[in-house]
Amino acid sequence: MNKVDTKTAEGILFTDQYQLTMAQLYYRMGLHEKPAQFDYFFRHYPDYGAHKAGYCINAGLEWLINWMRSVRFRKEDIEYLRGQTRRSGEPVFDQDFLTWLEETGHYGDITMNAIPEGRVVHPNVPLAVFQGPLAMAQILETSVLNHLNYQTLIATKAARIRESGRGQLFLEFGARRGHDKGVNAGARAALIGGADFTSNVGISHVLGLPPKGTHAHSMVQAFLALGMSELDAFKAYADVYPDECLLLVDTIDTLKSGIPNAIEVFEDLKKKGYKPVGIRLDSGDLAYLSIQAAKMLNAAGFPDTSIVLSNELDELNIWQIITQIEEEGPRNGLDPDKLIRRLAYGVGTRLITSAGDSSLGGVYKLVALWGDNTWIPAIKISESTSKTPNPGNKKVWRVYDKRKKATADLLSAEDEDPRKFEKLVLHHPSDRSIFRALDQEMVTFLEPLMVDVLKEGKVVYNFPSLEEIREIRDSDIESLDSGVKRVMNPHVYHVSITERLWQLKQELIESVREQGH
Amino acid sequence: MNKVDTKTAEGILFTDQYQLTMAQLYYRMGLHEKPAQFDYFFRHYPDYGAHKAGYCINAGLEWLINWMRSVRFRKEDIEYLRGQTRRSGEPVFDQDFLTWLEETGHYGDITMNAIPEGRVVHPNVPLAVFQGPLAMAQILETSVLNHLNYQTLIATKAARIRESGRGQLFLEFGARRGHDKGVNAGARAALIGGADFTSNVGISHVLGLPPKGTHAHSMVQAFLALGMSELDAFKAYADVYPDECLLLVDTIDTLKSGIPNAIEVFEDLKKKGYKPVGIRLDSGDLAYLSIQAAKMLNAAGFPDTSIVLSNELDELNIWQIITQIEEEGPRNGLDPDKLIRRLAYGVGTRLITSAGDSSLGGVYKLVALWGDNTWIPAIKISESTSKTPNPGNKKVWRVYDKRKKATADLLSAEDEDPRKFEKLVLHHPSDRSIFRALDQEMVTFLEPLMVDVLKEGKVVYNFPSLEEIREIRDSDIESLDSGVKRVMNPHVYHVSITERLWQLKQELIESVREQGH
Repeated sequence: MNKVDTKTAEGILFTDQYQLTMAQLYYRMGLHEKPAQFDYFFRHYPDYGAHKAGYCINAGLEWLINWMRSVRFRKEDIEYLRGQTRRSGEPVFDQDFLTWLEETGHYGDITMNAIPEGRVVHPNVPLAVFQGPLAMAQILETSVLNHLNYQTLIATKAARIRESGRGQLFLEFGARRGHDKGVNAGARAALIGGADFTSNVGISHVLGLPPKGTHAHSMVQAFLALGMSELDAFKAYADVYPDECLLLVDTIDTLKSGIPNAIEVFEDLKKKGYKPVGIRLDSGDLAYLSIQAAKMLNAAGFPDTSIVLSNELDELNIWQIITQIEEEGPRNGLDPDKLIRRLAYGVGTRLITSAGDSSLGGVYKLVALWGDNTWIPAIKISESTSKTPNPGNKKVWRVYDKRKKATADLLSAEDEDPRKFEKLVLHHPSDRSIFRALDQEMVTFLEPLMVDVLKEGKVVYNFPSLEEIREIRDSDIESLDSGVKRVMNPHVYHVSITERLWQLKQELIESVREQGH
Repeated sequence: MNKVDTKTAEGILFTDQYQLTMAQLYYRMGLHEKPAQFDYFFRHYPDYGAHKAGYCINAGLEWLINWMRSVRFRKEDIEYLRGQTRRSGEPVFDQDFLTWLEETGHYGDITMNAIPEGRVVHPNVPLAVFQGPLAMAQILETSVLNHLNYQTLIATKAARIRESGRGQLFLEFGARRGHDKGVNAGARAALIGGADFTSNVGISHVLGLPPKGTHAHSMVQAFLALGMSELDAFKAYADVYPDECLLLVDTIDTLKSGIPNAIEVFEDLKKKGYKPVGIRLDSGDLAYLSIQAAKMLNAAGFPDTSIVLSNELDELNIWQIITQIEEEGPRNGLDPDKLIRRLAYGVGTRLITSAGDSSLGGVYKLVALWGDNTWIPAIKISESTSKTPNPGNKKVWRVYDKRKKATADLLSAEDEDPRKFEKLVLHHPSDRSIFRALDQEMVTFLEPLMVDVLKEGKVVYNFPSLEEIREIRDSDIESLDSGVKRVMNPHVYHVSITERLWQLKQELIESVREQGH
């Protein structure tokens, strides 16, 4: 796309057509400026098939807010909408609506609170709550879902990979296989969720991190094509980057050529007073090759050089590699823990596309409309009770038990303060028979999770830095029970509602059902 | 991101760090302006688990070229690179290299040929071939892969969905669940591969198509919350859009509320002289509900209104729905073919993320370097022979048999013309024992697939319009055997190499192997 087209495609028209046709209907009925509340939440953790997440890491908020503040209906957008025609040949949008849209078509009237980025989050909990004029809050839907679903999906995958890799250095490598420009958002989310660095230069610059990388097979190939050798290529690399020498050893033959050549170059570097960084393995049986590489490097006097693994890695592959090293290391005379501590991971495709579950099914649901002087809860009843959202204005609390572990998230009505309840009754959101009663002495504290972000379009929140977001993440993951963090078959974390919210939901479901009969 | 950051993250720094460190190494060795050739190709069709593609639809070329022509190393980019430091604290990039990059850091010297967008393409066939100065051609890699992999992935999925839906109206709905801004490229690719329209407003505008859509559940909910009914909501919609009236009928209860209410509104419209468009089903058993909806609409005198299906659709779900309608339609007194011909499909998440296989593993491989007066083929030998790319400059041919069906793609050396061969011998690219000999009378014609796109950065190609790309697609799909088009377990299409290319490959593999021992 050229620049003009990019402004169109990534501006306020980055939405679905039906948002605009509904907005016009609201305008026609005089409802377009009626205050409405929409909740953003997801219903299920990512399910990758053989494995499944037990928690998510919230991400995407700051970029969403930046986008909301940078767009509005421009003259060009209005002209385009004016040109849209119906089957009859008449315009889709009428002049009065377009005039209103040109004057009022921005997100400067939206008030919003949200759970901060980096926090552990769970299904059916509102992660962001939007209040504003019905028509504009409706038009906003597509972009909210687009910004928040993807980053939360990738931050979650990255947290799992970090967990599985036992906190070893973890680099995001996905730009070449991700979904077009979306990879920049994906890299940011990976850095929030668990990656230490990314190879993506531009986004590193924007986020203030150094980009990371080594060299590719093509460098060795180029030397070979010109009649030189792999060793020549490694030597040249070491000459140019003596203090950053990390060599990719699988272009010809990892064990017979790559590692012996790397060791020769490392010895030269050592003589010159440099500390070689390590090698990268990008094909073959990475567990077996790690063990063989470690033996060869140890024998040559390089017990500390890194071994960077890449090639279709994800949390399961890494877990499998580590398990195999734990089993086979000792037989090979290696301390497996020591080997595991010198590994690093370059993770591309399977992280940036969340392979196995390539989308988060987050939704943006109307939960309340402003009546004459109060909020009227709204509800959508579906075939299944479990899909029915929790209606109305709500507060979100995290309940910490005596061990200071997070034991449940609790949704209450807006004007309830569960900190003052004598007994905390945690109801399952759709099954009346399931509840848990906690005496207050079984609880360390109840933490409100939402912060104010926008007041009528003005930012009232200090966005944390990437570093601060990562601290939030670490502390939240620390407070999870290990069962919830399991890579496979995680324990189910409880998301509950208060008695009052339960009653409200039942009343609404009944009143809507009556209409259907 | 703000505008300044977007320019950085989506400009020429939209690449991996190692491309830049390798470029500096080539500069240091005086190799940076040596002409090099890189081939872009993929190795496997998308494999979605239970099903697998038998062909791909090529897409992404025009946007890649637009990007290449719009970026260069700007002063700001150079300043950023100057600030990068090594472990030692010294700069990563030296002044002489940065000066060269500032002067010469663009894609204005790249010559490229490629297979046009919309064409059916197969594994191990170069889809785009880049020749240019080694350093810049290397830096280009990441963006080439990013632009071409994703669009080809999605165009392929869209072609499968169109095939499975028997060519019925097919709308792309994925903006809310796709990967950040990547959804714009995804929508374009879907429109190339098989979708008729998209709900995405901005990209429709850019591509000159009308965006499509109806209304959401939230509209009905808003009416309910304000004390009105689903029928009121439908009536309001019909008032505003009398000639575009397509109603979403599953907010309360599809069969008991939604469809009866829709029929009531359709009757009013009919009286006023309008033709109602149809209904949309977004939950439940879509095959069962389609049959029931058709019965109710037929009985009410609306046998032609559309039934639009949505909700986690993909080629398998659609195939399953159609199969169920064929089985159960007659029992319900319906002509299944007639019902199938009134269906339309709104496909979101599973298309825009290519659920099941969320990335195309396309690669960009160095295949030749310019020597003193000739191209020297380059090769990477991997653990498996089948992963070894076909070296050197090549031509790509499509072989059509007597029925004018495409029977194989053939790679030849640059200076070979297989049209002049007496006997066409098609060799398997890695297994000598597999080959097929065709007399020329068994062949209708050999079609060269590549076109010239860039000559030293200048566009020498007329990019076809979306409409033209779709004609190319239809004609190529038409020329495939039906076995290759099967949604599940497709027949394997042959990609072959000539005898000369086979010999060249073996010689190169041998010469590289010698180095490894």
